[in-house]
Amino acid sequence: MTTSITLDDWRALDAQDPLRSLRDLFTLPDGVIYLDGNSLGALPKAAPARVAEVVAQEWGDGLIRSWNTASWIDLPKRLGDKVARLIGAAPGEVVCTDSTSVNLYKVLFAALSQMKGSGRHIVLSERSNFPTDLYIAESLCREHGFTLKLIDEKELPSALTSEVAVLMLTHVNYRSGAMHNMTAVTAAAHAVGALTVWDLAHSAGAVPVTLNASNADFAIGCGYKYFNGGPGAPSFVWVHPRHASQFEQPLSGWFGHAAPFEFTPHYRPAPGIARYLCGTQPIISLSALECGLDTLLAAEAIEGSERGMAAIRAKSLGLTDAFIALIESRCPAAFTLVTPREHSRRGSQVSLTMREGDGAYAIVQALIARGVIGDYRAGDAQMPDILRFGFTPLYLSYEDVWNAVEQIVQVLESGEWKRPEFNRKHAVT
Amino acid sequence: MTTSITLDDWRALDAQDPLRSLRDLFTLPDGVIYLDGNSLGALPKAAPARVAEVVAQEWGDGLIRSWNTASWIDLPKRLGDKVARLIGAAPGEVVCTDSTSVNLYKVLFAALSQMKGSGRHIVLSERSNFPTDLYIAESLCREHGFTLKLIDEKELPSALTSEVAVLMLTHVNYRSGAMHNMTAVTAAAHAVGALTVWDLAHSAGAVPVTLNASNADFAIGCGYKYFNGGPGAPSFVWVHPRHASQFEQPLSGWFGHAAPFEFTPHYRPAPGIARYLCGTQPIISLSALECGLDTLLAAEAIEGSERGMAAIRAKSLGLTDAFIALIESRCPAAFTLVTPREHSRRGSQVSLTMREGDGAYAIVQALIARGVIGDYRAGDAQMPDILRFGFTPLYLSYEDVWNAVEQIVQVLESGEWKRPEFNRKHAVT
Repeated sequence: MTTSITLDDWRALDAQDPLRSLRDLFTLPDGVIYLDGNSLGALPKAAPARVAEVVAQEWGDGLIRSWNTASWIDLPKRLGDKVARLIGAAPGEVVCTDSTSVNLYKVLFAALSQMKGSGRHIVLSERSNFPTDLYIAESLCREHGFTLKLIDEKELPSALTSEVAVLMLTHVNYRSGAMHNMTAVTAAAHAVGALTVWDLAHSAGAVPVTLNASNADFAIGCGYKYFNGGPGAPSFVWVHPRHASQFEQPLSGWFGHAAPFEFTPHYRPAPGIARYLCGTQPIISLSALECGLDTLLAAEAIEGSERGMAAIRAKSLGLTDAFIALIESRCPAAFTLVTPREHSRRGSQVSLTMREGDGAYAIVQALIARGVIGDYRAGDAQMPDILRFGFTPLYLSYEDVWNAVEQIVQVLESGEWKRPEFNRKHAVT
Repeated sequence: MTTSITLDDWRALDAQDPLRSLRDLFTLPDGVIYLDGNSLGALPKAAPARVAEVVAQEWGDGLIRSWNTASWIDLPKRLGDKVARLIGAAPGEVVCTDSTSVNLYKVLFAALSQMKGSGRHIVLSERSNFPTDLYIAESLCREHGFTLKLIDEKELPSALTSEVAVLMLTHVNYRSGAMHNMTAVTAAAHAVGALTVWDLAHSAGAVPVTLNASNADFAIGCGYKYFNGGPGAPSFVWVHPRHASQFEQPLSGWFGHAAPFEFTPHYRPAPGIARYLCGTQPIISLSALECGLDTLLAAEAIEGSERGMAAIRAKSLGLTDAFIALIESRCPAAFTLVTPREHSRRGSQVSLTMREGDGAYAIVQALIARGVIGDYRAGDAQMPDILRFGFTPLYLSYEDVWNAVEQIVQVLESGEWKRPEFNRKHAVT
């Protein structure tokens, strides 16, 4: 790609886009280019009516009967089966429940239980992993006598030793957008006798995930990012069938019991992934999540040589390539690219740092004021602040990319981001 | 009360009921008398519009910005402050989050952490406690080297010894409807040096709860029963201020961090109850819960000598008295009363067992077919099957009680409950 590419060229790509009709599955506000689907996915057009039905008919009219008549009892497994199609898992291997942090606690606890007495004492992760993952690991390591060792990605090969009990990684890094090779990393971990726990928060629904083919051990992920499940949508959890019935996770609530409605005083875990359920789930939010999952599954039915996650991936790379090319041609002095250029190493986002100064937060705010919604992630001594732009192929076009970069150029050239109102921190950044 | 009481007498009580106008805050299906608000509260009339607003405006239009602009970030604390008014707690002492089972795990873990090294090794609870509480306690006891000791209620005085680390009770028993004296039991536990963990699932919103006045230590409770928060609504957690900043609960997710949006790699718990938050919460379900809480808070504004939970309690006792009197006068041979007759020992439900045979399940099904919705809870070797009827003063009248008993009499006299369709078990009972 060169600077000679014009808006018309981008429009031509949109005209050939096999996913273009899926934009109609979403409601997006006028005047907004939404580059934050990696933080909260957009509203599926089907969600308002479905949620209204759950509230008025299932709750209001059906009342308690809806646990049976509206199959609320099956929702975590039914949605889990839909998630399975998107992450390389099989039916019956996934449940949708609880939050990502809570599910990580369950699987990491199960993995550590398996490793107790093995003489291995390290849980290995990246310093740049999403903080909640590190906090949960910190808690479990302290409780179970393991040491959480945090490294930079490049240290991974040398840090994977026979002392490692569990390798806990986020498949696509939330800051950099860098993607691990799940198959190769899992094989390397297994070669030294370690188990793998994968956080798919920034990959499920964004890139093809191959849990079974990669021979992974445990995975959890997010319902409200690329799955478009709504704010705080329940999370999902997958455990390889070779482990699923082997260990008890500690959050042994009644929904994970083999027979919850026998109301027996002693816990007997359900076989398989159902034992990773705990308490009663938020049915309204869970129902909205199903609408989000259906937007991704709609990509399985499109016309074209590639379908489903393969088609989503192809367009995602096209959009991020386009964004990188335009940023580098139109504002080469302003930003440094953080996200890997190689396709095989890139998720569905592009992260930038400022070449000079600390304007990242304010530029993001100025862009939001112009309707270009990305986000900002604070750095620290090891990591600079970043501007983060997520690309959701289901509802973004190449023309959106062009227009977003046009706004970025205008924010930089106008200097408007220096205004005080763009430099006041919000509670949530 | 005698058998000479007529429907007109009941109607007279309804005419004087200071809470009668609150029925208009709910949408209930025609032809239904809903005696299962102890399992899933009815739909607040405000909920459909509020939920639609959260979905279409806050999610759809506001997108990620709504974490700030719609104050999603504050919801767990804002709703917690509303819950606090209903359970004898102060603002800033409660958060709404996660499920009851997950919150029990947090507080019981915190309580056991405090007791480690104390030489005490027993977690004491009732055999008839709600099973998920026992399952969670079983898991934590195994992990932390404590013994879960299950007793019958009458054994409590003798079982409270200096070996007890934690007394974990449900304030109102889910099966029998029997209520503990929270103040006296807490004092007895403290007298032997034990901490108390109270499950308020069947008391919060049903009876006055006096956590601070009773000097309790930890409490959790349910959003979807008497709080009318919708199916699987998030739960709440309270920790006495003397403990709240003293211990780390193990589910140390980012929302419990002192500064979640600094994205630092090490966990630093927030001061106070905020550290009992973990992951991102299901905002749509949480918003529906607020509508439910508002129906209870509306009782604070009624005319009359008693308001709020005191008025709700007075009517609750009136309704359950009326139900017991009518059952005992109209079908004396059919049922035995399980729920305590003494007001001070009764929650807001009435549980019955069959005097003969095992028709409890089928009678409940036949009643549901007639629009009288109660539920059934299976027994075991120690406990008979029960028919359970919950009484929610916000939307039930004395006339409803009369009509419900009339239907019970007809189901018994017709023998229709013996039909095969009423004897097939559903997934959820």
